Amino acid sequence: MIINETEVKVRYQETDQMGVVYHANYLVWFEIGRTHLIEEIGFNYADMEKEGIVSPVVDIDAKYIKPVRYGQTATVKTFIKEYDGFRVIYGYEIFTEDGNLAVTGSSSHVCVKKSNFKPISIRKHFPDWHEAYLQAMGDSHGVRN
Amino acid sequence: MIINETEVKVRYQETDQMGVVYHANYLVWFEIGRTHLIEEIGFNYADMEKEGIVSPVVDIDAKYIKPVRYGQTATVKTFIKEYDGFRVIYGYEIFTEDGNLAVTGSSSHVCVKKSNFKPISIRKHFPDWHEAYLQAMGDSHGVRN
Amino acid sequence: MIINETEVKVRYQETDQMGVVYHANYLVWFEIGRTHLIEEIGFNYADMEKEGIVSPVVDIDAKYIKPVRYGQTATVKTFIKEYDGFRVIYGYEIFTEDGNLAVTGSSSHVCVKKSNFKPISIRKHFPDWHEAYLQAMGDSHGVRN
Amino acid sequence: MIINETEVKVRYQETDQMGVVYHANYLVWFEIGRTHLIEEIGFNYADMEKEGIVSPVVDIDAKYIKPVRYGQTATVKTFIKEYDGFRVIYGYEIFTEDGNLAVTGSSSHVCVKKSNFKPISIRKHFPDWHEAYLQAMGDSHGVRN
Repeated sequence: MIINETEVKVRYQETDQMGVVYHANYLVWFEIGRTHLIEEIGFNYADMEKEGIVSPVVDIDAKYIKPVRYGQTATVKTFIKEYDGFRVIYGYEIFTEDGNLAVTGSSSHVCVKKSNFKPISIRKHFPDWHEAYLQAMGDSHGVRN
Repeated sequence: MIINETEVKVRYQETDQMGVVYHANYLVWFEIGRTHLIEEIGFNYADMEKEGIVSPVVDIDAKYIKPVRYGQTATVKTFIKEYDGFRVIYGYEIFTEDGNLAVTGSSSHVCVKKSNFKPISIRKHFPDWHEAYLQAMGDSHGVRN
Repeated sequence: MIINETEVKVRYQETDQMGVVYHANYLVWFEIGRTHLIEEIGFNYADMEKEGIVSPVVDIDAKYIKPVRYGQTATVKTFIKEYDGFRVIYGYEIFTEDGNLAVTGSSSHVCVKKSNFKPISIRKHFPDWHEAYLQAMGDSHGVRN
Repeated sequence: MIINETEVKVRYQETDQMGVVYHANYLVWFEIGRTHLIEEIGFNYADMEKEGIVSPVVDIDAKYIKPVRYGQTATVKTFIKEYDGFRVIYGYEIFTEDGNLAVTGSSSHVCVKKSNFKPISIRKHFPDWHEAYLQAMGDSHGVRN
């Protein structure tokens, strides 16, 4: 199972007046982790979009355990939790600089045509991504064909 | 049960290159709805913070049903789903201009001291808020005392 | 001369750990003022974009005089400073709730084809906007034809 | 003269529906460049803030020459343009991946007490920063003592 690790240095802009990273900004860090995981398995969203396909979030959740603060560099671990040829669910774990778990979460995504937001099959339209997703999940996960 | 309705006009800055509102920005709209609901029941976060208390998000989830686009004004409906004297869970429903359900979600919050992020009891420290929360939930919800 | 006045209530997300609105967010408020001014003179960006034209910022400046804080509602005054048929320069003044000048600024914009970012003439392609811009500037401003 | 070079990979969240980075987000990249320049000369804002001092932007300007797009990694060059013991003016040049100038700008900053936003003298309160600023500017710039 591939687990991408990406470092994110807190931007001043990402803090709020509580003195910590504003909660919705961790979802942007999820996006960064997801982007890097996809690059690690050999693909990228920019190329996908050139073919008129975008990959919106269908649902998302996050659990906030410890705040991350300005001056720190967090680590985002991203992995594929589930994938069935249509929908992919990413899992995320964000760690503080000193190794404490700060935020966990997951997001599920489908691929749709940008022109009308109709879903398409990843397995059919992007067979290479399909294979890469399966491999990235590793042996311990089943896939519904 | 009090349901706050707040209109949010899409900002250009909130869109992304999919041509729709970027998914994490709906969480900011949740914040706007929550703020208005609290004002509707007679309080506000700014006053709370003057007493050294902040109210971070503990967990959050969102389900994206239809995209909202630039040029539209959405409606955010916010209500209190659960409250036990310590933790409050808000529910959200965002509707497009033509009345379609676009996004649903919920977020749970505690109150903590800004200085050390230690949780406090809302019931004990803010008895007026406590009463207002109970009333805002209405009869159909129990509260664990 | 038309001066649009729009109220903007500070979002928690817009603050940073200085306890004030993060400086780049006032540029988003400029965008809100600009959008409302354009609507006040009878147009909107969303319609323009349906014709494949977008209106990027060419340059921008802002001067920060007093910070705006969470809990406050600011007023953004927007007006047209200059317009020559191609380029339009908007002026902005943001006031705090108690009437103090908080931020001033200006931004200049052209219209370009979204497909290739080549500039077009507003006067030629959008003669109605052209007339409305001239009227919105009022008598005290000349226009180079 | 020290010129800091920092790479910034475009975040999907930073794009807007024009398909390019939203103009106000380049100001966040300025902040990233500034932060790295300060670290390069041996300091950081987080430590300054622990002493109750913050460094707000007094004015800012940006000129947009070429858009930066998702999928690209830009380079931000940051340097000190002027410094007089009180106010520091940073200059910025952002380059696209293929070496074209995309955005230029500058921002001026003072140091103030967080408690009341009263300005302080950098030369007096932070003599080490003062020396480092002078050295970072290099010989070609004068400083008013």
